[in-house]
Amino acid sequence: MADAKVLKEFLGEVKPAIDAYILDFLPSEHSRDEVQCLYDMMRDYPQRSGKRLRPALCLLICEAFGGDPEKAFNTAAALELLQNWLLIHDDIEDGSDLRRGEPCLNQKYGVPLALNAGDALHCKMWEMLHRNAEILGHEVAFQVLAEFTRLSNQVVEGQHVELSWVHNNQWNLTEGDYWTMCVQKTAWYTSIAPCRLGAITAGAAKADVDQFIDIGQNLGVAFQIQDDVLNLTGDEGQYGKEIAGDISEGKRTLVLIHLVNSCTADEADSVVEIMARSRNNKSTADINEVLSLMEKYQSIAYAQKRSEALVEQACAQFAQRFVHIPDNQAKNLFVPLVRFVVERDY
Amino acid sequence: MADAKVLKEFLGEVKPAIDAYILDFLPSEHSRDEVQCLYDMMRDYPQRSGKRLRPALCLLICEAFGGDPEKAFNTAAALELLQNWLLIHDDIEDGSDLRRGEPCLNQKYGVPLALNAGDALHCKMWEMLHRNAEILGHEVAFQVLAEFTRLSNQVVEGQHVELSWVHNNQWNLTEGDYWTMCVQKTAWYTSIAPCRLGAITAGAAKADVDQFIDIGQNLGVAFQIQDDVLNLTGDEGQYGKEIAGDISEGKRTLVLIHLVNSCTADEADSVVEIMARSRNNKSTADINEVLSLMEKYQSIAYAQKRSEALVEQACAQFAQRFVHIPDNQAKNLFVPLVRFVVERDY
Repeated sequence: MADAKVLKEFLGEVKPAIDAYILDFLPSEHSRDEVQCLYDMMRDYPQRSGKRLRPALCLLICEAFGGDPEKAFNTAAALELLQNWLLIHDDIEDGSDLRRGEPCLNQKYGVPLALNAGDALHCKMWEMLHRNAEILGHEVAFQVLAEFTRLSNQVVEGQHVELSWVHNNQWNLTEGDYWTMCVQKTAWYTSIAPCRLGAITAGAAKADVDQFIDIGQNLGVAFQIQDDVLNLTGDEGQYGKEIAGDISEGKRTLVLIHLVNSCTADEADSVVEIMARSRNNKSTADINEVLSLMEKYQSIAYAQKRSEALVEQACAQFAQRFVHIPDNQAKNLFVPLVRFVVERDY
Repeated sequence: MADAKVLKEFLGEVKPAIDAYILDFLPSEHSRDEVQCLYDMMRDYPQRSGKRLRPALCLLICEAFGGDPEKAFNTAAALELLQNWLLIHDDIEDGSDLRRGEPCLNQKYGVPLALNAGDALHCKMWEMLHRNAEILGHEVAFQVLAEFTRLSNQVVEGQHVELSWVHNNQWNLTEGDYWTMCVQKTAWYTSIAPCRLGAITAGAAKADVDQFIDIGQNLGVAFQIQDDVLNLTGDEGQYGKEIAGDISEGKRTLVLIHLVNSCTADEADSVVEIMARSRNNKSTADINEVLSLMEKYQSIAYAQKRSEALVEQACAQFAQRFVHIPDNQAKNLFVPLVRFVVERDY
């Protein structure tokens, strides 16, 4: 209970501080209208709602390892810029309508301008990381850059795999395939790298930094599964995206993979046939059919249980592997933070 | 004549060396088919034809300033990676069909996968620049990174301005507007930064590095004008893109701006009306009408003269401002190289 209060305070401080830092960094005013429009586009997603969980995780781990979170702040903010350019491009790739409760950038400005604004924000991420030369010194600044190139390589591979499953209408997928895709698409930039970067900026030993690969995989996949579940069960106002949008977009989620591998062959044929249709050719009845089969085979409940189990595993790993790190408030907040992230209902 | 031979030899050496370096750097094989597809996509544009002019310019200037071009090689290759990810995204933004004589990546794989492959290559560019820490030492490696963030900010702004003119169907444009857009969209990454990076890696004085802003602006705009002209007059087989594609895409080139500002009000209305139509609603007759008006008002000839004048200005500036740099073969090749680039017919 006390933890919950401290966590709320911590998250309540991180969000406005990160937002202010990013909005101060991004260009804001230009005398030419066309360029002003680009600046407005670049500032659009960073000004929308969201919890700034990746920066929070990075700052928390830095402090847990005895580092000065102020020194990790620039790196934490760059993780949020990463998330923003990824979302802009992801929304184009998926043809999404809503993001954080508002029309996607591609819906507001069209694909060409939105794609370019995503590139603009992507470039700004590397520019922000360049600042680390002064903040962290050249040696550590280059280590941070190396982490960002590593996570970038992972995220584009994971994104490619997910998109190609949709593109090729591939359905012979196991939970193992989903796991591999999620680790690359989500876990690397959502949990593995934020934790590693927090530890690196704190000057942690390499062996400790590397522990976050296992821990972060479990956390990141848990996070993604919870996101998949919220996509099906959430409240649109809170969740900020269209409910069951993953079904419209043909996404291979753990829920769907469980369903296809659990139902009868006839039912599976029907689900696969619906999922293969383009977004505009899926009726509400189609989507409801998939949802009711998910209910019948308890696929959502299955996914939720997997997600919870993964978080517990990550928490146990964290406790065991960092038994040598002295207790402090930040270290004690790790478990409440990751439980909050995965138990969130928005 | 002797210069022409030396230039040909120089360019003939740069291209295969840069290509080999990039293809060795990019991932090539993966056991999973989906990831293999991403790797193939990333290697696609870098394997197509092209002259590798930006790396050549960077290496030449490095040598002209007494530097070791081997030390600039990694940076020069990163300029070519930049060009490749920009082209992938540019082709999506413009809805183009052909690139270097083959279908664009978005035509071969669809927009979502192509967009992501562009991001993958973009990330690889920063990874390549990370190697400079070992090649150039931390100090200069960070200077090179700063140049890349600077040119990136320019190129996305220029790209945005050009796209927004099409998006907003804006036609009240002067040659000055075209100049500003071209400096940002083309000159920074085509000539200003390649020259500056060559000089930086050679350890040139800041005052010398900064001279390349003026020189590179003239060169880069000349290059873009020539590209606009080739788009209208080139041989598709050699040029590698569809002829008059800029008219199909509604691009504001110097040729068109000259035409609209030179012809009668009725003719201008007709041109603007044709240009405003979507690609699929432009007939061959429409395009021929625009082309014949360009002929009538000698807009192509005008653009060619502007391009030639800009190159001569750049050559004169180079000679005057670097009179204190000792003559050597590389310095003497600058003028033949830039003349070749702008007088090229493909």
